[in-house]
Amino acid sequence: MLLKSSINDLKKVLKKENLLFQEEERYCYAQDSANLKDKSNLPDIVVFVESIEEVQKVMRYANTHNIPVVSRGAGTNTVGACTCTKGGIVLNFSKMNKILNFNPDDMTMRVEPGVILGDIKSLAESVGLFYPPDPSNFKVSTIGGSIAQSSGGAKSFKYGTTKDYILSLKVVMADGTLMRLGSGTIKDAVGYHLNQLIIGSEGTLAIVVEAELKLIPLPESNAMITAYFDSFEDATAGVNGIIRERIFPATIDFMDRNSITTVENFYPSDLKTDKECMLLIEVDGFEVSMDTQLERVKKALLSNKASDIVLLRDKEAMEAVWTARRASYGAAAKLAPDVVTDDIIVPRSALSKMVCGCKEICRKHNLQVCIVGHVGDGNVHPQIALNLDNDEEFKHLTDAKSEIYSLAISLGGTISAEHGIGIEKLSHVDKIIDEEVLNSMRKIKKLFDVGNILNPGKIFKM
Amino acid sequence: MLLKSSINDLKKVLKKENLLFQEEERYCYAQDSANLKDKSNLPDIVVFVESIEEVQKVMRYANTHNIPVVSRGAGTNTVGACTCTKGGIVLNFSKMNKILNFNPDDMTMRVEPGVILGDIKSLAESVGLFYPPDPSNFKVSTIGGSIAQSSGGAKSFKYGTTKDYILSLKVVMADGTLMRLGSGTIKDAVGYHLNQLIIGSEGTLAIVVEAELKLIPLPESNAMITAYFDSFEDATAGVNGIIRERIFPATIDFMDRNSITTVENFYPSDLKTDKECMLLIEVDGFEVSMDTQLERVKKALLSNKASDIVLLRDKEAMEAVWTARRASYGAAAKLAPDVVTDDIIVPRSALSKMVCGCKEICRKHNLQVCIVGHVGDGNVHPQIALNLDNDEEFKHLTDAKSEIYSLAISLGGTISAEHGIGIEKLSHVDKIIDEEVLNSMRKIKKLFDVGNILNPGKIFKM
Repeated sequence: MLLKSSINDLKKVLKKENLLFQEEERYCYAQDSANLKDKSNLPDIVVFVESIEEVQKVMRYANTHNIPVVSRGAGTNTVGACTCTKGGIVLNFSKMNKILNFNPDDMTMRVEPGVILGDIKSLAESVGLFYPPDPSNFKVSTIGGSIAQSSGGAKSFKYGTTKDYILSLKVVMADGTLMRLGSGTIKDAVGYHLNQLIIGSEGTLAIVVEAELKLIPLPESNAMITAYFDSFEDATAGVNGIIRERIFPATIDFMDRNSITTVENFYPSDLKTDKECMLLIEVDGFEVSMDTQLERVKKALLSNKASDIVLLRDKEAMEAVWTARRASYGAAAKLAPDVVTDDIIVPRSALSKMVCGCKEICRKHNLQVCIVGHVGDGNVHPQIALNLDNDEEFKHLTDAKSEIYSLAISLGGTISAEHGIGIEKLSHVDKIIDEEVLNSMRKIKKLFDVGNILNPGKIFKM
Repeated sequence: MLLKSSINDLKKVLKKENLLFQEEERYCYAQDSANLKDKSNLPDIVVFVESIEEVQKVMRYANTHNIPVVSRGAGTNTVGACTCTKGGIVLNFSKMNKILNFNPDDMTMRVEPGVILGDIKSLAESVGLFYPPDPSNFKVSTIGGSIAQSSGGAKSFKYGTTKDYILSLKVVMADGTLMRLGSGTIKDAVGYHLNQLIIGSEGTLAIVVEAELKLIPLPESNAMITAYFDSFEDATAGVNGIIRERIFPATIDFMDRNSITTVENFYPSDLKTDKECMLLIEVDGFEVSMDTQLERVKKALLSNKASDIVLLRDKEAMEAVWTARRASYGAAAKLAPDVVTDDIIVPRSALSKMVCGCKEICRKHNLQVCIVGHVGDGNVHPQIALNLDNDEEFKHLTDAKSEIYSLAISLGGTISAEHGIGIEKLSHVDKIIDEEVLNSMRKIKKLFDVGNILNPGKIFKM
């Protein structure tokens, strides 16, 4: 618990209106978008920072007084990465939300951490440029959180993840030092890639206070195909066929039968509920290539027992399919008081085994699960609907997750593709990362943050 | 100097035929492809390793006896990254050259460090897949060296560099410990990105003994445009115009007038010698998009004062242009006993200033320079022809390089894009990386390599 004197000290160096310390105010920061059973992780104070200098001031104070500091953007992560495990300060970046520079000719954008991803994407697209990372919450989530969690999205298969679009970072270290990592050029072979070490470190090594982003030309057109399969084996074979046709789809998403049925029950969207799997494939590129791409995708799907293939060119029709796909979480939320969404990844050749295994594990534990994900990169998102307050169900959830992670690892995969670890998966990290590698990570953590004040208790046990 | 007893010790644990310790044998390893004045950096022994276990044995011995170890693939780097600054052991990876696994459906390949890049590219292409990094020496250079130097190439503008295609690494640490970094899945959000820390660290943090690579679908077709300009301002404006046309060329290379003239003098290739700049633009994608792409590129170039525009579709004709472009180094080598090639990068908007500044600096120092590079990402490769044994010329080279780096930095660029630092640029690193950032790198180096035995004396002063 933060001392009253500390709150008074912070009041002296920061604007009063930027500090929240009443319990009812702090309560709003006890959680992020992770559906955790324990909702009691209150910060002692929430500080809205407005400048790099203010971040430095807070860090110098926190470092001297050994106060934990948790950075927070929109709080949309699903693993408890910005909850407070030991009280302390929440740094709220929502006021550091300016686009500092946009250079269309150099295809770069320099932003503060609180900028909404959607705003970055829109500004780029307004001049024919493209910032590809597209986590499903991009309309509300921030670039700072995206960097912290190394977020991906439906287009990661073709376009990579956040780590592929960061040219340089400004970060404030635990002791308040400001560092610039990377030169901001498109290629950079000078010294160690410290910016890549920060990306995905969930605020445990340094606090990102500015980022320079790489943009690429926006593909001028896109088109979509939806198709259904009686098994995930067939669906995966269909995707392999698409690649053999030399097509590189921007997105190859899937919904399983439970997910389709649940969406149809709550948001009727004209999906077929009698098939095991629906694929949603988006291709992009030059308008003149669209028919070729669609024809070849169709051919590959037909050769692999697809049915009900629909080709879509109309923007509204495509958006309607996306809306149905994105409704899967909301629909699952109607099945029970809580939904816990997960994030595992396996080589694509093991996707069918992973999805079927997930279902089997949930069936065994009497849990309702709707599964969606990205076939291209083998990323599976089980959405488990349950009542977290029911201790028996919670026990089943805990056991099921553990089994799901073990299965992913046994299939050559890992326990998080794009959501991160936070506190939610911390106890499973040693299943996939060897002890000596974890020790290297711990040593780096100690090097960057001697007092363990930066987002303590996340990713791995110290 | 390594003790005789050490050589005898190594003989006991390794195959005798894999050890070179005669002076004339060791002399072959005194240099790499950097054209350094000092050619006296002899190793004490060269060890051809054949397995991970042998690398571990050598490292355990070297660590115990505090012997420097320098890893070497094909020795094609241009910055002295695999020369020995303190004698010791050269680990030669040319016998660890097996492709361990190729999974076309998962689009991955697992390789030993001594595999030639060209072999990786050919095998991938044989089934319609693509490993994009293409340093100009890819027909002889190894994946291990490519990872160490974070190498790029002409296609980096569109396809990124080595760091974007590494899914996981196996590395042997200074003390002989084997670690696996990254899970090998296409996305991975578990813990710190230690593999990204290793990539580009030039063998100073750990020794890469295995890598899992990400492949992508191979574009089915390509086409080329060449064009000439009276100024680099116009050429850059032309490239901006191409991007505004929503074209993402795979390559936008340039040759300056000196480079063109030198090539024409020694390898007549039908290039125009009366223009300041030639652009060589390659587009790729679906066959059906080629005409569209070529037309739009042509339109953008014509709007920006291009002349002598030629569109090429014929494979042989395109290869002939590439041969002329690649001949620039060999041609420059005919101007004087030595050629020193450099590697700087600036935002594309500063490319013209960088190229013109380079020429001005070389003129001032009475040095002949041929400049080629990659316009897309602002990467400039001055090739300076001189006699390194002439002390006065060497002094001018040293001064000119220093001025070129300062100019690059003043234009928002950096001192290496894709070649690395090695020993050649070590004394300039503190111009671009702040002292506190360098200190973080030093601390990481000490963490990974307590005794400073891994490729000592590279990248930065300890």
